[in-house]
Amino acid sequence: MSKTSILYQHGTLALLVPGLLDGTITMKEMLQHGDTGIGTGEGLDGELVILNGTPYQIDSHGSVNIVPDDFTMPFANIHFANYQKLFDVKDISQADLEKKVVSATSTNTFFSIEFSGTFTNIKTRAVKKSQKPYDTLAKTAECQSIFQRETVAGTMLSYYSPQLFDGAAVAGFHNHFLADDHTFGGHLLEFGSASGTVSIQQFDTLEQHLPVNNQEFSNFDFSGHDILGDIHKAES
Amino acid sequence: MSKTSILYQHGTLALLVPGLLDGTITMKEMLQHGDTGIGTGEGLDGELVILNGTPYQIDSHGSVNIVPDDFTMPFANIHFANYQKLFDVKDISQADLEKKVVSATSTNTFFSIEFSGTFTNIKTRAVKKSQKPYDTLAKTAECQSIFQRETVAGTMLSYYSPQLFDGAAVAGFHNHFLADDHTFGGHLLEFGSASGTVSIQQFDTLEQHLPVNNQEFSNFDFSGHDILGDIHKAES
Repeated sequence: MSKTSILYQHGTLALLVPGLLDGTITMKEMLQHGDTGIGTGEGLDGELVILNGTPYQIDSHGSVNIVPDDFTMPFANIHFANYQKLFDVKDISQADLEKKVVSATSTNTFFSIEFSGTFTNIKTRAVKKSQKPYDTLAKTAECQSIFQRETVAGTMLSYYSPQLFDGAAVAGFHNHFLADDHTFGGHLLEFGSASGTVSIQQFDTLEQHLPVNNQEFSNFDFSGHDILGDIHKAES
Repeated sequence: MSKTSILYQHGTLALLVPGLLDGTITMKEMLQHGDTGIGTGEGLDGELVILNGTPYQIDSHGSVNIVPDDFTMPFANIHFANYQKLFDVKDISQADLEKKVVSATSTNTFFSIEFSGTFTNIKTRAVKKSQKPYDTLAKTAECQSIFQRETVAGTMLSYYSPQLFDGAAVAGFHNHFLADDHTFGGHLLEFGSASGTVSIQQFDTLEQHLPVNNQEFSNFDFSGHDILGDIHKAES
């Protein structure tokens, strides 16, 4: 098994729903499992994009910060980049892009998309850090900041998860974005059209790491929460 | 991360539901990821129990066979054993055992139970190998053999999976059994009471491996199948 066939995930999206937002892994630990990824900080402290081994945070003010080694996260995905070029696109809509990608691979497997190019009418969001006792994901999502650009050059980093793993991850596409000049980014909500190069990396293994030493997680009763419903509201 | 904190899983239970039963990993490959486990062979060829590095198959005739290296499987779990003793029990019912285990750990994490002792009124089943084109899990389950013993000494090997991973694994307990004298075993359906020693091993990582090179899996449309419903019918 090659290292580039593994998608490492710390925590699950389901943890975020009831507000289990303790940082349970450090960025230094995450970077042992890859050089490319996404995530969020303790208390939903912004949106993370890791590119070429450098971790960036887009905070709720829209600033892009380089993340220190001791930064902690409740949830993150990371892998060692080994993308294969899929195709070049020109003025493609987000829906058409997703269709084109899906038709080129299997939706029963985990894969990542790296899309470098120029994006128009792009909208991102960044969540705002909450303090303990943390809010639920639905509550935190109400306090998110929205950012927009008419045109921006940058990289969309996406993970696709099969329907069967909905709840552990976001079934379907989960997209983060970082502008080339580091003045814009976040969790990608939508874009109008985009031109550039689309590359794919398929995984055969999900390495799902759970924060078993976190008492609040271990003792939590998820049964009273609409985990999937709340994820789909917050992550769309 | 220690190797004993990892539960390795090849395939998902969801694959079995529509009859994606090609053997997509060999026993030799599986044994690189552990010395203790459960699974089934290509075409649902019996019930597997791996103990101390030796893989046993309980076939649909009730025979216990040692499995060769080139035996292939559509689904299996394996880990490196490092059990910690939980407690000794005497004449405990299956329901009380599960309650006692659950109260000693977290149901939000993956763990394994090894229960060595004497079991009364025990009932197991073993599925029968089907040929390609394979039957669905529900259909195959109709052709299973049921085995019973009034009293038998042996080992129950169980994996517990959190509710969130239902479909990938069996949420809750998934129990296989092997008699000490290798004359009885299979997928454990129920026992009346049991006495012996119960040990536990908690995992912080699920290493979920998917058969991405199997075209039937990659191309399959799961959306028309009641995956969870059929799993719960077949695995209970």
